[in-house]
Amino acid sequence: MRKIGLQEIDDIARGASLLGSGGGGDPYIGRLIAMRAVRECGPAQLIESDEIPDDALIVPIAMMGAPTVLVEKAIGLHEFEELSDMVRRYFNKDIYAFMPMEAGGLNSMMPIAAAARMHLPFVDADGMGRAFPQLQMVTFTIGGVSAAPMCMVDEKGNSVIFKTITNQWTEELARSVTMSCGGAVSCCLYPMDGKTLRAFGVKGIVTRSEQLGKAIRKAKQSSQPQETFLQECGATLLFQGKITDVRRENNGKFNLGHVLLDGQGEDAGTRGEVTFMNENYMFARDGRILATTPDLITIVDRDTFQPIGTDAVRYGKRVLVVGLPCYPLWRTKEGIALVGPRIFGIDEDYIPLEQRVQEAK
Amino acid sequence: MRKIGLQEIDDIARGASLLGSGGGGDPYIGRLIAMRAVRECGPAQLIESDEIPDDALIVPIAMMGAPTVLVEKAIGLHEFEELSDMVRRYFNKDIYAFMPMEAGGLNSMMPIAAAARMHLPFVDADGMGRAFPQLQMVTFTIGGVSAAPMCMVDEKGNSVIFKTITNQWTEELARSVTMSCGGAVSCCLYPMDGKTLRAFGVKGIVTRSEQLGKAIRKAKQSSQPQETFLQECGATLLFQGKITDVRRENNGKFNLGHVLLDGQGEDAGTRGEVTFMNENYMFARDGRILATTPDLITIVDRDTFQPIGTDAVRYGKRVLVVGLPCYPLWRTKEGIALVGPRIFGIDEDYIPLEQRVQEAK
Repeated sequence: MRKIGLQEIDDIARGASLLGSGGGGDPYIGRLIAMRAVRECGPAQLIESDEIPDDALIVPIAMMGAPTVLVEKAIGLHEFEELSDMVRRYFNKDIYAFMPMEAGGLNSMMPIAAAARMHLPFVDADGMGRAFPQLQMVTFTIGGVSAAPMCMVDEKGNSVIFKTITNQWTEELARSVTMSCGGAVSCCLYPMDGKTLRAFGVKGIVTRSEQLGKAIRKAKQSSQPQETFLQECGATLLFQGKITDVRRENNGKFNLGHVLLDGQGEDAGTRGEVTFMNENYMFARDGRILATTPDLITIVDRDTFQPIGTDAVRYGKRVLVVGLPCYPLWRTKEGIALVGPRIFGIDEDYIPLEQRVQEAK
Repeated sequence: MRKIGLQEIDDIARGASLLGSGGGGDPYIGRLIAMRAVRECGPAQLIESDEIPDDALIVPIAMMGAPTVLVEKAIGLHEFEELSDMVRRYFNKDIYAFMPMEAGGLNSMMPIAAAARMHLPFVDADGMGRAFPQLQMVTFTIGGVSAAPMCMVDEKGNSVIFKTITNQWTEELARSVTMSCGGAVSCCLYPMDGKTLRAFGVKGIVTRSEQLGKAIRKAKQSSQPQETFLQECGATLLFQGKITDVRRENNGKFNLGHVLLDGQGEDAGTRGEVTFMNENYMFARDGRILATTPDLITIVDRDTFQPIGTDAVRYGKRVLVVGLPCYPLWRTKEGIALVGPRIFGIDEDYIPLEQRVQEAK
């Protein structure tokens, strides 16, 4: 158990944005929500998954919705209380701890804010080790854990509980309600016991986010910033260049689109393309694929190494495109069936990032 | 308390279709659901609202969705059990009786089937005295009664509970989920106590449906069938003619459209037009409005007086268009604000059917 205060929040938000692969919500809003909670209620308590009793009730907490909408909506203070009440009432049991569902600028912050305000700990684990656009895309689905009962509240005071036959149906119904509520809601889903969390969760992800956030912060002060950034973060440089176009479409549910880049430095004379759906899920250089989902693909500012979300990419930005290997469970047959390239409409086999980069040399 | 068996179901379904004003679901499916329940589990018990204790839990039960979709979906046996469990669990209280939400071929039948299968009575009252396309359009909304908690199940086994800030929001969110579930679901909403039911419910509506159903059945054997039908049902003849066109659009939520008619008999040489959104909400002859919502407008077969729903109107049919005055509460300022012409996009003041018909003479 350790305390998460303002400096930790700052680092976690930055590092989680790198893991967010372009998604996971806006880190500016995320920081605001978590820092305000900690300022008002004191630091949040982070616990390791090993500290949790087998039968303790663990409740992931997240925002659901299109990142561009999330930026314009604040989160009301009543929402954590309402969600906690719904879960407690459903199970007739106290909540032992919150946890994040995914790593991302906003969704890594939600459980910190909830933990601080509700005076409960949150767990150093999540269900993705990155961000994905749909709620069934978690390691817990591979483990046969149900997303339901899923509790949802909007900022107006409406609330909904879903009990569904599959996690895909939870996604379907919860997405509909999210859109009807204005595009963004707060929710609790995949309520589970400590034993299940230990079996299928991505452990240590909060601490890893914090370390990455620190590494990004310190790389700027290094004599060789870019090398330090890549090395400290364990990231592979896929491309460096300038954004020449961002082709967006919002289908009412997700941010979809392509980021087009002109190479600079060693990549001068080549073109890059990042394809995204809330998160980045493919990168190609001159038409050759260098990385696909479930590996992590993140665009960062060339000078500050700040991750840039898919809702914030802009024409003219000088950036690096970096890749990180995904959580090992995602590389299994079951993982690829849930979040591999074909799920996002790319008719390619999954080949690990390291291998693709090696073969392209 | 009296028993509702097969003959009563047949009459109630027919009469409720007349009150359904073109909506309220398909009476063929409705009859099947109710008759099968009664054949398998014995007659349903109908109780008067005066027989109910003040604090008894009364639960309206209905199907939600576009009538055209309802025709293709059957209702599973598990659904009444699942809904009852959700309501009981929510209130931690036993259900005293079911009741219908609206009068219509299908939705008058749902509580009969539920009552027979669950061995609970159902109440001789509903919340509309007719059918309307949206769930906030009930007398209970005027009484300040909340539609929430609303429980919903689909035939696959998904279930949802809504708790909302207004009945309009219940409609909004429940409609989204209904669409995502395939267009039609079963639900319980406006759970209330006996006292509330007596204060705002449309009392005696099941018995009235049965009387209308009997009147339709017997009119055919009369020497002056049309006169007998109109007189026994208390209906005003608005138009007689042939359907020359049905212009439909389905916006994914509702059946919208217009029925165009060429006059016959006394209406020869004139044209009629019925405008509908699930239910019929305006009738005009040669451009002159003779009836609008909330008064009832129903198209019936000219020879059998069988009501024809908005999903079943067809080119070539010989029909009568009849009007019936709505429940008095709908004619108040609050009623008109909830279900008057402007709610359905007609920029006209509400004028009672009797007055419009008188002035047109």
